[in-house]
Amino acid sequence: MDNNRKIITISRQYGSGGREIGQKLADRLGIPFYDNALIEKAAQESGLIPEFFEDTERHAGNSLLYALYRGAQADRFGTSLLSMEDNIYLAQSNVIRKVASEGPCVIIGRCSDYILSDMVNLVTVFIHADLEFRKERAVRIDGVDPAKAESVVLTKDKRRQNYYNFHADRKWGIAKNYNLCIDSGYCGIDCAVDIIYDYITKRR
Amino acid sequence: MDNNRKIITISRQYGSGGREIGQKLADRLGIPFYDNALIEKAAQESGLIPEFFEDTERHAGNSLLYALYRGAQADRFGTSLLSMEDNIYLAQSNVIRKVASEGPCVIIGRCSDYILSDMVNLVTVFIHADLEFRKERAVRIDGVDPAKAESVVLTKDKRRQNYYNFHADRKWGIAKNYNLCIDSGYCGIDCAVDIIYDYITKRR
Repeated sequence: MDNNRKIITISRQYGSGGREIGQKLADRLGIPFYDNALIEKAAQESGLIPEFFEDTERHAGNSLLYALYRGAQADRFGTSLLSMEDNIYLAQSNVIRKVASEGPCVIIGRCSDYILSDMVNLVTVFIHADLEFRKERAVRIDGVDPAKAESVVLTKDKRRQNYYNFHADRKWGIAKNYNLCIDSGYCGIDCAVDIIYDYITKRR
Repeated sequence: MDNNRKIITISRQYGSGGREIGQKLADRLGIPFYDNALIEKAAQESGLIPEFFEDTERHAGNSLLYALYRGAQADRFGTSLLSMEDNIYLAQSNVIRKVASEGPCVIIGRCSDYILSDMVNLVTVFIHADLEFRKERAVRIDGVDPAKAESVVLTKDKRRQNYYNFHADRKWGIAKNYNLCIDSGYCGIDCAVDIIYDYITKRR
């Protein structure tokens, strides 16, 4: 398989450097990089309309949401069973599928590994690190108050975990659900980029 | 830190090639390799006596077993609260700590990542793979009946998971508990060896 045709998703603990690793990896591979901000913006611009669901019934992972969506469409009383949060998730899923269908790229978070799990050229990565490494990055890069760094890091992770576990039918951070999981706190950001790059390109 | 001073533990799903990866990694690093068979043999030869517990009270991970062991020692009626399984685990832990204290090595399974978790030069790895990859290896390498391969693979994994979750105070296969988790089914055995070698030696 042409290694340049990979879709790479990166899930990550807050502060582990997953976003920076994804950006550097995309730069090295010469492919687009999509982070939360880009995906949210594109989803907003789409008007939150999940029209992509028309032909994605086969994607079993979203079967419950799909059923709700179809139910809402067919509802002759005009009310919807879908919450605003569901609609946002569907619109973001739409964006994620669209960019992945356009060619190789690196996508960060937003359940992208789960949403794209039926793609054969998918490589899924999970980045984590020890608490001290993540606190230091939260303070230095995101400007978090040092006194609140631990609480911020743990709360953000809890939100990410809840978001993933709610929308996917599997758990966040279980090793067997990813092709590669890396403790970036041990080896550093650039080493993690090297490891992912080698994993993709050295494939048997 | 001198990269030759690493203790590397490899946990693995059955059939994922973790043992072969560990052996090849040890050969490349020029350090000893300890698998289940070696650890079990050494534990049997030790007479199953967990005398090493005398000075390991600080190892909080085994505090309950330690308490039981001390209780059994102090029991004036001469009965023991420790089962044979507990004694075997303690004797194997003794062997694992002893070989790790002697110098760099690669150790496979037996909760070694957990038993050695207070060592600063520890690198923990988890190897997994898709079911088809593991079934094929079980048949080809271990001579498992192809008709029973799926059942054998899943049962062996269940046993490994139960063994780990019983003895350790954390769960088997959770990404954040390992420095590196690799899907060997995606990249192959030799690629996995390369990835671990690079992860250890390219450290920032």
